[in-house]
Amino acid sequence: MLNTLIVGASGYAGAELALYLNRHPHMNITGLTVSAQSADAGKLLSDLHPQLKGIVDLPVLPLENVAEAAKGVDVVFLATAHEVSHDLAPQFLAAGCVVFDLSGAFRVNDPAFYTQYYGFEHQHTDWLEKAVYGLAEWQAEAIKQAQLIAVPGCYPTAAQLALKPLVDNQLLNNDQWPVINATSGVSGAGRKASLGNSFCEVSLKPYGIFNHRHHPEISSHLGIPVIFTPHLGNFPRGILETITCRLKAGVTAQDVAEAYHNAYQGKPLIRLYSKDVPALKNVVGLPFCDIGFAVQGEHLIVVAAEDNLLKGASSQAIQCLNLRFGFPETQSLF
Amino acid sequence: MLNTLIVGASGYAGAELALYLNRHPHMNITGLTVSAQSADAGKLLSDLHPQLKGIVDLPVLPLENVAEAAKGVDVVFLATAHEVSHDLAPQFLAAGCVVFDLSGAFRVNDPAFYTQYYGFEHQHTDWLEKAVYGLAEWQAEAIKQAQLIAVPGCYPTAAQLALKPLVDNQLLNNDQWPVINATSGVSGAGRKASLGNSFCEVSLKPYGIFNHRHHPEISSHLGIPVIFTPHLGNFPRGILETITCRLKAGVTAQDVAEAYHNAYQGKPLIRLYSKDVPALKNVVGLPFCDIGFAVQGEHLIVVAAEDNLLKGASSQAIQCLNLRFGFPETQSLF
Amino acid sequence: MLNTLIVGASGYAGAELALYLNRHPHMNITGLTVSAQSADAGKLLSDLHPQLKGIVDLPVLPLENVAEAAKGVDVVFLATAHEVSHDLAPQFLAAGCVVFDLSGAFRVNDPAFYTQYYGFEHQHTDWLEKAVYGLAEWQAEAIKQAQLIAVPGCYPTAAQLALKPLVDNQLLNNDQWPVINATSGVSGAGRKASLGNSFCEVSLKPYGIFNHRHHPEISSHLGIPVIFTPHLGNFPRGILETITCRLKAGVTAQDVAEAYHNAYQGKPLIRLYSKDVPALKNVVGLPFCDIGFAVQGEHLIVVAAEDNLLKGASSQAIQCLNLRFGFPETQSLF
Amino acid sequence: MLNTLIVGASGYAGAELALYLNRHPHMNITGLTVSAQSADAGKLLSDLHPQLKGIVDLPVLPLENVAEAAKGVDVVFLATAHEVSHDLAPQFLAAGCVVFDLSGAFRVNDPAFYTQYYGFEHQHTDWLEKAVYGLAEWQAEAIKQAQLIAVPGCYPTAAQLALKPLVDNQLLNNDQWPVINATSGVSGAGRKASLGNSFCEVSLKPYGIFNHRHHPEISSHLGIPVIFTPHLGNFPRGILETITCRLKAGVTAQDVAEAYHNAYQGKPLIRLYSKDVPALKNVVGLPFCDIGFAVQGEHLIVVAAEDNLLKGASSQAIQCLNLRFGFPETQSLF
Repeated sequence: MLNTLIVGASGYAGAELALYLNRHPHMNITGLTVSAQSADAGKLLSDLHPQLKGIVDLPVLPLENVAEAAKGVDVVFLATAHEVSHDLAPQFLAAGCVVFDLSGAFRVNDPAFYTQYYGFEHQHTDWLEKAVYGLAEWQAEAIKQAQLIAVPGCYPTAAQLALKPLVDNQLLNNDQWPVINATSGVSGAGRKASLGNSFCEVSLKPYGIFNHRHHPEISSHLGIPVIFTPHLGNFPRGILETITCRLKAGVTAQDVAEAYHNAYQGKPLIRLYSKDVPALKNVVGLPFCDIGFAVQGEHLIVVAAEDNLLKGASSQAIQCLNLRFGFPETQSLF
Repeated sequence: MLNTLIVGASGYAGAELALYLNRHPHMNITGLTVSAQSADAGKLLSDLHPQLKGIVDLPVLPLENVAEAAKGVDVVFLATAHEVSHDLAPQFLAAGCVVFDLSGAFRVNDPAFYTQYYGFEHQHTDWLEKAVYGLAEWQAEAIKQAQLIAVPGCYPTAAQLALKPLVDNQLLNNDQWPVINATSGVSGAGRKASLGNSFCEVSLKPYGIFNHRHHPEISSHLGIPVIFTPHLGNFPRGILETITCRLKAGVTAQDVAEAYHNAYQGKPLIRLYSKDVPALKNVVGLPFCDIGFAVQGEHLIVVAAEDNLLKGASSQAIQCLNLRFGFPETQSLF
Repeated sequence: MLNTLIVGASGYAGAELALYLNRHPHMNITGLTVSAQSADAGKLLSDLHPQLKGIVDLPVLPLENVAEAAKGVDVVFLATAHEVSHDLAPQFLAAGCVVFDLSGAFRVNDPAFYTQYYGFEHQHTDWLEKAVYGLAEWQAEAIKQAQLIAVPGCYPTAAQLALKPLVDNQLLNNDQWPVINATSGVSGAGRKASLGNSFCEVSLKPYGIFNHRHHPEISSHLGIPVIFTPHLGNFPRGILETITCRLKAGVTAQDVAEAYHNAYQGKPLIRLYSKDVPALKNVVGLPFCDIGFAVQGEHLIVVAAEDNLLKGASSQAIQCLNLRFGFPETQSLF
Repeated sequence: MLNTLIVGASGYAGAELALYLNRHPHMNITGLTVSAQSADAGKLLSDLHPQLKGIVDLPVLPLENVAEAAKGVDVVFLATAHEVSHDLAPQFLAAGCVVFDLSGAFRVNDPAFYTQYYGFEHQHTDWLEKAVYGLAEWQAEAIKQAQLIAVPGCYPTAAQLALKPLVDNQLLNNDQWPVINATSGVSGAGRKASLGNSFCEVSLKPYGIFNHRHHPEISSHLGIPVIFTPHLGNFPRGILETITCRLKAGVTAQDVAEAYHNAYQGKPLIRLYSKDVPALKNVVGLPFCDIGFAVQGEHLIVVAAEDNLLKGASSQAIQCLNLRFGFPETQSLF
């Protein structure tokens, strides 16, 4: 049994982590924390997330002293804002914990990235170098050795899982950037009061056009430029991405199918569609990324769907945990 | 043409008022205001409510001096909180305006009501006495003479329209209180950021059990005790009320039908159902209150539906305006 | 390991059963069937319910010969219409299977009930007598011995769990019938094409007033008359019931709390609320029934929530299975 | 006053037409019809669409004899399937009616289009030639003279309104096809029972990839190839299209803004966004097409939103009517 601490347990991803870890046969939740300033400090997790009543009734305690909190803890999940993860991760790492960070703080191994897109100077470039990007299907070997796993963002997970087999097999015409149209449920904005996320104000709408932080995360990991347009949808959770690409001359639907097959054969959490197409409904509440595609001439449309809180956050973190510690990859995930 | 000012125009009811008044052939919107402290002050109404772009693009100005704001204004709509209406209404009335107040500040002609349920001492008992309760189908004559019309609350409108014909015809067994189960869309909570009204948190749920402010409004105007249980529903607007009553021995379905028929014959904004039952969908965006019922033995179930922002607020205010000034009752309402 | 067959696997309850049974450590799904006439026959379960892709990819076969289908099968789940269950259950029982029937065919141990409310003469009164009503928290001992378990209807489960402690402790004033206002998600209507359940037509609306089949199921098992008014809500799943009761003179909130405490202490799938109230969101996707209440004078309002497909159908069936075979009561349920 | 007949009044677009025509000061609804085979024949329109109760309570009669039905009728709206419109329009035209056809039967003035995309040989090529495509902002002059107006499809209206100013001003790089990602509400599929459109089955999902009939309608009218990917969204009405284009080298955001400004200055039903972006919520229930855009380097993203049943069908038909008969363009539209 590994002892585990969830930092930032009051958010939506934190609640999902608690649910998974509670049913994981090798994990023991020893603590849940939030910022000492949070109004949630001291409450039961199941008061914040009543669906967890009777499942995880532990209190969410204020995190005041990392060294203290880390005592006896094997594994830490950081479901915190990127500035918070940036500060906390090195302290938990120093205490010997294995850290799964769900924020953007360690996702790109290049300090300049943070200056440019996150607006701060990264102070832990040593850990930035050692951090392994937790795109589970592609990083399994590195994850097994890592002490710090930077779990990918919600949009980037689906985008990369959809595009990486095409890029790696050089099937795309580089003159034309893939167009990623993505729609996310409102939980992607986090658990907080805001007029824009209030029930009466939400409707289908693009946002962050040309300037969403997940854009450079996608591009830098894929190694190609893309056009990424996120939308807010009128549903609580799930992401659907419709990606329009230009194939290199001569590339066929068969080539595309093979690229996906070769990449994801034996990967239990990627579901390739040979008929019909992915739909949001198929993935909500489940740890999969579903991928389908269609080709017409040189044009390729790929459709990828996932639950933004699961494969786009918490279940991928658990998948990384399973890989890291040699548990079955899908342990406790469905 | 009457000149009109909407105070509290930034909220959902204010936006609906602007839409109706803009298409009203006898009304001229001369001003829109919000509290001087509001972050919305100075913006265009159509920036706050983009559906109004190209329809009502007037600025929402800070209300700083009532006497100034009232100059040349014939009619004022107060779509403000009850404390604000309590303070502002007498000033606009003193300036000679006809005032339609959508808050609770003047709905019950008994000062003790405010001490008990609203927690403040009413300072304008003269106006409280003169105010006419704007339940349009029942107060048409009084409305024609009134300078201050207190438009009923959203839940009370449907509840009273459903129950008043039964009470007035003494069809109910008084030993058993009518059970009003009501579900409202989230817009009933107003336009503001709150965790409880955020998209991911809203789901069907009762609230304010035994202590909602609309409870005494319903009881005091009907003159009978009731049990009123409001619920929040996962939809932006509309109210459905399912009301379970005990009939006096010997009262038949025919008696009930006649009571409704007699009460609402010739009332264009009440739609009685002789087959099927009201549904939320039928009234959203429309100024009606729909009423249907079923009887089994001594038990009667009445179903009433309305749009909480319209018949439960803004369209009823316009209906009162039409009655007050002798315009056709449904002028500009559909 | 027990071998199990799901009959009627193509519906929503069938899909949930498959998900649970797939992760149950003591169960082995050996077959899925539908009616031989069904257009779904021969397809993969995961084509009908794509969320199950990669989890349960078994074909849904036409059920042509019960004796054949029953070979080697220990446990059968009937997620079929009541007429179908009525015919099939005795055949599977004769083959020695333990049968969990999710239909209404064996829920009331009185043949007259079927003539009156289901419109057919029950042909298997011997089994009707032996069938155990699977209201799990109340029938655990009987379930352990049963060969045929009639899993309760979705509305009746919540209604009885909410009311039975009050009835058994004689807390209610019998002069006044409890008023059960219940709202169910659309999945309660089953997986089929119908105009009334199409996306654009669904909105909050009562139906089956005074004549829903679950009404007598509730009354006959509780032993008291009730008023039951079901509503269709604009959500896929979940049931919320708001129940208004009259207490006997002198009964206090404390008495009510004790009745619930005594009834459900140690029952892991009932969650009693001592603060706040149940909400639909808290139970969707989970096997619980949540219960809260409030008292004012002689009036009591009880709120119960459950997932109609889970505690109202499939998870309760699995809970009964766990009880029947001595597995932990919540095995594989969260 | 013009007498008008709505053919196919039982559908969603028909109901919207009835609502608009009822409040139009120059129009008199003299008849509503459906196919003689329809189960809706003989019912009141307000029984099929209860929101119209008290507004339009006319019966929906079986259309048996066109000559009879056309007597005394000045204007006919065909809210019928394309095969039906194909057959009926010439008959009503022969009777001297002005016909507004909401189907695809006369939208492209090229018979080959129908053979290829609609699978039938067009029998009325004379009318095909004379029909005017009712894209109101672009065809006002032609509409004024037309006897047959082919109102554009829902997706094509938004797509063309968004792209036509760019194409006409030659701002686009022709090497790269505009990528149109469009999401429509479920009402786009019509008022009918189908499993795919049932409440529990609908979720965000692409469909008709590379083969939707609106694709050639868009391309042929714009005169450029496009990639068009429609999606079904989990909302009853509205369309949002996010269109990604490549600009010609040297074209600036200012050029794009000017193209839109020049095209839509003085067009009351196009709302150009200079800040923020269109959202579905802003257009539902309203007759506008909202357009916004953003440029980064050579990449342009245009966002267009409309109500699929209004600007994408019924309100555009009324707008065409207003243009045709010299009424104010927005008469009765808001």
